[in-house]
Amino acid sequence: MSSNSDIDNLIDLMAKLPGLGPRSARRAVLHLIRKRARLLTPLSDVMQQVAATARECLNCGNVGTTDICDICDSEVRATGELCVVEDVADLWAMERAAVFKGRYHVLGGTLSALDGVGPDELRIPRLKDRVTAEGISEVILALNATVDGQTTAHYIADQLEGQVRLTSLAQGVPIGGELDYLDDGTITAALRARKEL
Amino acid sequence: MSSNSDIDNLIDLMAKLPGLGPRSARRAVLHLIRKRARLLTPLSDVMQQVAATARECLNCGNVGTTDICDICDSEVRATGELCVVEDVADLWAMERAAVFKGRYHVLGGTLSALDGVGPDELRIPRLKDRVTAEGISEVILALNATVDGQTTAHYIADQLEGQVRLTSLAQGVPIGGELDYLDDGTITAALRARKEL
Repeated sequence: MSSNSDIDNLIDLMAKLPGLGPRSARRAVLHLIRKRARLLTPLSDVMQQVAATARECLNCGNVGTTDICDICDSEVRATGELCVVEDVADLWAMERAAVFKGRYHVLGGTLSALDGVGPDELRIPRLKDRVTAEGISEVILALNATVDGQTTAHYIADQLEGQVRLTSLAQGVPIGGELDYLDDGTITAALRARKEL
Repeated sequence: MSSNSDIDNLIDLMAKLPGLGPRSARRAVLHLIRKRARLLTPLSDVMQQVAATARECLNCGNVGTTDICDICDSEVRATGELCVVEDVADLWAMERAAVFKGRYHVLGGTLSALDGVGPDELRIPRLKDRVTAEGISEVILALNATVDGQTTAHYIADQLEGQVRLTSLAQGVPIGGELDYLDDGTITAALRARKEL
């Protein structure tokens, strides 16, 4: 190890990022030191900016620099459709696909008895308020196809039943997917939901 | 994507780190924003520190905060043994093993005709100077067991022949290694260098 405590500190902090372990953190730090002007200084500056300005949208939970995010603030996106996602990363994934024109609601996780996450730890009460307040006609449950995701989807569906149209993302063969590599559950879902050509 | 250009900037810069792609950079940035006080702010601060103070040792090429690194500066480590490594990461790996008591010389890469890296692009002239100036009795070539690493080792051995004792790291079965998973070259090297029990 280097005797320099700043460099060691930097390695320790980098190793706390998801996807980086101690070894890749050391590699990343050496890379940063080599590209000081082009990478290390700009990265430090922009981190300071983000630390000062980043906040969660009070309405939907998206991450941005304003109390109300651009999507919630945009009149164009008041289509009456509300897409419920687990996490900001899922919202960004939907936005990259650029096909959904409505607004989002970020739960901030899934219900989990094991981890002690109940409806009040997520943004579920706020979701119910929004359905009324924003005149939502359809809630699209875009939760992950995991056990926890689907449990959460069922819970929300129970809570909103009768008030609004409830839909979920289709399940089936992903684009470019090969049958031989798919699990049985996906093939079963795709067969059950088969379409007329 | 978030509409916030600072957050987008941060994602773009993080994606330039080795081991992180666009997807893991997004995950890391969301993690940083969630752990603002405990991770994002300290990371930004320590990056600024490192950007201001980190430098290469003028003698051996190690990374530290002084013109001459602690190892080169320490009289205890003037054992007459000089360990030649490709990269600072290799020096750190040797130091973690805590078995070598001499000094290091970081080449900063390997000779590579394809990439146009000749002896003058590396710290090879400086190595020859140090062998004389520091009264080195043994040069240990701890270069990677790759084609480029071994080519570089041979070149350095040629340059220093007759002036100093030249050794290289032993090749063989790694500790905890299983024969069935080793390549033929390693097994051949281990058999040739077999030892009396």
